[in-house]
Amino acid sequence: MASSGTGTGSPCGACKFLRRKCASDCVFAPYFCSEQGPARFAAIHKVFGASNVSKLLLHIPVHDRCEAVVTIAYEAQARIRDPVYGCVAHIFALQQQVSKKKHFKPVWSEGNGRDRK
Amino acid sequence: MASSGTGTGSPCGACKFLRRKCASDCVFAPYFCSEQGPARFAAIHKVFGASNVSKLLLHIPVHDRCEAVVTIAYEAQARIRDPVYGCVAHIFALQQQVSKKKHFKPVWSEGNGRDRK
Repeated sequence: MASSGTGTGSPCGACKFLRRKCASDCVFAPYFCSEQGPARFAAIHKVFGASNVSKLLLHIPVHDRCEAVVTIAYEAQARIRDPVYGCVAHIFALQQQVSKKKHFKPVWSEGNGRDRK
Repeated sequence: MASSGTGTGSPCGACKFLRRKCASDCVFAPYFCSEQGPARFAAIHKVFGASNVSKLLLHIPVHDRCEAVVTIAYEAQARIRDPVYGCVAHIFALQQQVSKKKHFKPVWSEGNGRDRK
């Protein structure tokens, strides 16, 4: 069986997308399976570039890399959906919701406080 | 005077950072001045890559590019500050604030509504 980062002989989703050999220590292999991985990696590659993401992952602890891949994939997909604002559109929308909150006060402040849990 | 995208003879901040000739139709020139531009562009280059950002800008209307550069710069700086979560950390924090809002109701709902503005 050929050596690959997935341990199955198949290249990981990122290497499959990049049409390259998947090394046994491939930084992408734990996060991009051979089946769904290529589609997930496509957005990341288009927005950030494989090399930039590889460097970024190699500079953070292994136990943090899964979360990093999730947030990078989210940002990449958001930027493809909305090339001008990307996920910052989500931040603007949430900031608007929070700013409206200034006109609100807790429901439990209406009574005398005895029924507050 | 040499031709450059800034129209001043100096390369724009992006081309200065990339140490390349700044063409008269440089896509970065309107958004990265020769002085502060290189520092601003450094984060974008590190996170997204000059080539990816150039392609992205060329695919959106000119009147939207300034906003796109602002949001890309924001995402890049956030990813450098927090390599695991990037600006998604901001989204999580805002989502928490919004979810707390469910326990709140408008201050004007306390009375009989006659004093509501």
